[in-house]
Order: sequence, then C-alpha cells, then structure tokens
Amino acid sequence: MIGRAMKLGLVNDYIPALIEGTSVKLLSDDLPEIMALPPHARLAGLIERWDIFSSRVTDTVSPSVALGSVILRAPLPRPAKLLCGQLSFREGVAEAKVKPAFFLKSSTSVIGPGETVELPTVDAPVFHHEAELAVVIGKRAKSITPAEAMDHVFGYTCFMDMSARGVGHGTSFQDKSYDTFGPMGPWVLTADSVPDPHDLQVRLWVDDELRQDYPMSDIGNPVADLIAYASSIAALEPGDVLALGVNHQGIGPIQDGDTVRIEIEPIGGFSVKVKDVLGRRWERGVDTRLAEVVLRMVRGEPLGTVEFSPRLDR
Amino acid sequence: MIGRAMKLGLVNDYIPALIEGTSVKLLSDDLPEIMALPPHARLAGLIERWDIFSSRVTDTVSPSVALGSVILRAPLPRPAKLLCGQLSFREGVAEAKVKPAFFLKSSTSVIGPGETVELPTVDAPVFHHEAELAVVIGKRAKSITPAEAMDHVFGYTCFMDMSARGVGHGTSFQDKSYDTFGPMGPWVLTADSVPDPHDLQVRLWVDDELRQDYPMSDIGNPVADLIAYASSIAALEPGDVLALGVNHQGIGPIQDGDTVRIEIEPIGGFSVKVKDVLGRRWERGVDTRLAEVVLRMVRGEPLGTVEFSPRLDR
Repeated sequence: MIGRAMKLGLVNDYIPALIEGTSVKLLSDDLPEIMALPPHARLAGLIERWDIFSSRVTDTVSPSVALGSVILRAPLPRPAKLLCGQLSFREGVAEAKVKPAFFLKSSTSVIGPGETVELPTVDAPVFHHEAELAVVIGKRAKSITPAEAMDHVFGYTCFMDMSARGVGHGTSFQDKSYDTFGPMGPWVLTADSVPDPHDLQVRLWVDDELRQDYPMSDIGNPVADLIAYASSIAALEPGDVLALGVNHQGIGPIQDGDTVRIEIEPIGGFSVKVKDVLGRRWERGVDTRLAEVVLRMVRGEPLGTVEFSPRLDR
Repeated sequence: MIGRAMKLGLVNDYIPALIEGTSVKLLSDDLPEIMALPPHARLAGLIERWDIFSSRVTDTVSPSVALGSVILRAPLPRPAKLLCGQLSFREGVAEAKVKPAFFLKSSTSVIGPGETVELPTVDAPVFHHEAELAVVIGKRAKSITPAEAMDHVFGYTCFMDMSARGVGHGTSFQDKSYDTFGPMGPWVLTADSVPDPHDLQVRLWVDDELRQDYPMSDIGNPVADLIAYASSIAALEPGDVLALGVNHQGIGPIQDGDTVRIEIEPIGGFSVKVKDVLGRRWERGVDTRLAEVVLRMVRGEPLGTVEFSPRLDR
C-alpha cells in the first residue's frame, strides 16, 4: 500500500514533513487539505487518505531544511486508539506460551522527541521505562485474518510505555495513562522499509547506560496475529497505534534528571528527559527484581512476592 | 458555564440538534463552523467552543421537526477519552470504603439509540449489561480540585457499559472494548438541569423486566472527587466522557433478541437491541451470583469462586 520507503512526521507547528537523511521537506504547500485539519489529526488524516495524497508527497518540490533546525513532534500526538501489548513477550523463554492481550493507554499521554516525562506525585513503588516497537494502522481493519493483517500496516514508530507500578492492576488507567507517559517518535517509517518486523532490535538507554536491547523475534505471537486479534475486538482505524509490548528483562527505574533514549533501526530514535518534583531516587540499572517476577509468570511458576528496585531516598 | 437547561444531541447525518420536549431543532444553519467538522467531532466541537456558540443555539430560529421523525445518534460517538468507573459503588453497603479507579474503554465501542449490540463469538461465560450515568466534560481539566470539578462538567448522558466476563482481567480491552459495547444517548442534558447528580436514579430494563434501579447516592466517592481524581492522571478535555460505574446488584445477562432500555430522569432514556449469531442462552433475570461476588469484594470478605448466571444452551 505504500509508494516507496519514507519517513513521515510532524514538525514545528505540527506541519507534515518528509524526512530524508539529515534533511526535511515541509509539506504544508503540498497538502493544504491536511493543513486544514486540527494539528494533532494531520498525520492520521494523511494516512487515511494516502491513496489520494501519496503522489503529492512523493513529488514534492518543497525546499529542504536541515533536520537539526526543526522541532520534531510525536507523529500521532492523539491517536484515536493507543493499544499496548500486555505481557506479550517470551522473555527469552523459547517454549513460553503467550496469550495475546492489549490494554488501552490514554492518547493524552503522548509526547514527542525532546519533551519531558513528568513523574506524578502518586506514591508508586517505582516508575519504569518500557521501550516498544509500535505499528501504525493504515486501513480500517475489522475482524481481519492474520494473512490480511500486514496489508493494514502503514508503518512503524518508536514508543516508550512509561509505567507507574503498584498503583493499579498493572495495565490500567492508574498505572499507564499519566500525561507525558507515552513518548512517541521520531517519525513513522513506512512499512515497505521493514520486510519483517520480527527482525528489528529494540534498544533503550538511560543516560549512557544501555538498559534494554532485545530482538522483536522474542515476541510471543506473530505481529500479524496480534493485529488480527485486536481487530477481532475493536475496529482498527487509520492512525491508530498498536505498541507491541516489551521484553521486561531490561526495564528499570526512571528518575528526575534522566535522559531516556530509544532506538529501533531502521526507524531511528529519540530522547526524552525525566522530571520529578519530589526528586525521588531508586537503585540504578535494570530492575532485576521485577524482571524475575515476569520470568516466573512466563514460566508459569508461582509468583511469590512482587518486588521492585529499592527506593534510596528514604 | 451553561446558558440554560438544554438537551443537545446529534441526529440524522450527525447534525447538531436542540431537543425540546417532542420537538427537535436542527442547528445546521446556525452552526456552519461545526458542520465543517467531521460528523463524529461535532458535539465535542460545539462543547469546546460553547462560549462562542451557545448564544446561536439559544437564539436559533430553525423550524422544529418532530422528535419521532429523526434518527438520534450517540451524542459523543467517538470521545477522545471514554473513562469508566471501576468498582466505584458501595453496592448498598453504607459503610463500604471505595477507592477511586477508572479504566479506558475504546471509543469505537460507542453506538447510539436504536442500534444493535453485537455479541462477539468469543467464548465468554456471560455478557452483562451495566447502566451508568456519564459525565460530559466541558472545559480542560488538569489536576483540578474537587471544589473546581463541577464547573468543568458540561452535562450528563446515559451510558451502557456492556461487558464480556472472564475473557480479560475484568476492566480490560478484552472485557469491555468490543465494537457496539458502548451504547450512549439519547442526548446530553446540560449540567444546569442537574443540581446534584447524586440525586439521580438509574434504571435499566431487559424487555419488560426492570433489572437495574439504583440511586446515584450509592456511589463510593462524590462525583466531584472522581472527576478531580481522573484529572490527576490524564488531562480531561471538552467532549471526554466519564461513565461513573455501576451498582452491580441488578446487572444480568444479555442475549440474542433482547431489547435493553436505560432511563435516567431528567435526562431521558433510549433502547438498543442485542444480536448474537451464536444464539447463546443464559438463565434470565439479575445475575445474583456475580452480584454476590461484588458484595463480598465491597465488604472485604474472601472472594471464593467467581460464578455467573448459568448458560442454558449446552
């Protein structure tokens, strides 16, 4: 469904843009109908009517500006549906059986590259980063089959599913939907650039420390199956975002002053900062305690006590 | 924030309308800017810019048509946020302590009066109706106090939180977000018509049987506290919908052929039909088994086995 490999995003005042290497073409003159949409709806609108607009993007003669001179925004700043995979990886346990499941995350949680994750003052035992590959839906999908699923994918983007632990039931509004808890970006890479999403590697750093570095081949069900499953519950629509979930064996605490960077090649990457007005501190590095809890779950072992990286400031 | 008591809805091709008794005034000529919005966004757009448009609604000279001659639509057919209260009632236990909690339901679940709830083929032990009062947000609310909350309410509508049991963790995408599982309507009654939402009575019938009939005074936390709580997690925006949850002591199975009617005076009421291609059958009437489970939860007693109304067709 895509014309050729492209990186499409929103820049500055939510202007649709084509990113080519270190250059950016602003598409405002090419897409007046899209510019007439509310700023947050523009990339979703472009995707919805891609059959009409793709040639205008391909044939743009807009002058290039330097990538470094623009502000990158979240490509889908207010997705009508933001679904996140729930315990969707095998966590390195090859024989693990994983049941497809999603939860909804509030669209108001989404922020873009360079923005700041603000930890709420809620007394959570810990706040975690989760680095995830996200699918951007291109065509309406209702109860489609896995064989049909990948034709409904417009492209891919990087997503961080920031999480407050111990304040809800693990995948709920209370745990997941705080404003700023959904960093997304830096753009959408069209699906024709990704022959097989299971070949991608997801990496996340906190400052200079590599925390997460896992292959998408660890996912518990094929991406096509997950899209088909989600579409069996709710119709998926152009611009909807499905974050595919995370391998927990590298997640860890985030705290005031952190810079968190996600990278998934060949999409690219971006960073956000973390702010906590309470200045809470945790033991740094991977949260090996929670990682072990999730491993026990995946192995079907008794859960035991759920523990997190210890808090250091009290 | 409202000019005078009004019932505002969407009719026919999602035309904003003022309902007065058994008459309807179509506002298309009064609100060309709103008509330019996507059909599903029109009432939310009207609410967002109510300071500008309210006088045009009040002063409309559009001719009246009969209420019976129009098709009523869900007033907010695709809310940017559809939050539902989670175990939010005292279930008649006056001394019960209830913790505020919400879950997100997919906006694609919303249908309007007269439409059909389609039971998915998923092998759920039972499908339940839940009749709920819903708040429609009028002004952006971020971390507001309970004292500020009611000034952010535009109005109220009726909502059915249809639920598939036993296929998720109770308040999840898998349980709640099936397409057609969110009947809403018949319109939004502005907040100035409701001095105190705790005085309202929520009723639901399946065919001729009154199943639910509970007072909003049974809610576990004041409505203002719940709105403030939700706003402490995610910014609430004009047109967002907060269904306030349910007293479970009257919920029961829905099945193929049922007509389900909700009424909350002075808002009004509406009916939907139920279709199940599998023709599954359950014991009729209130699901006393689940009602008892929820009572045990509210009383803090050991949960025991979770049971539902028995299925009769196998």
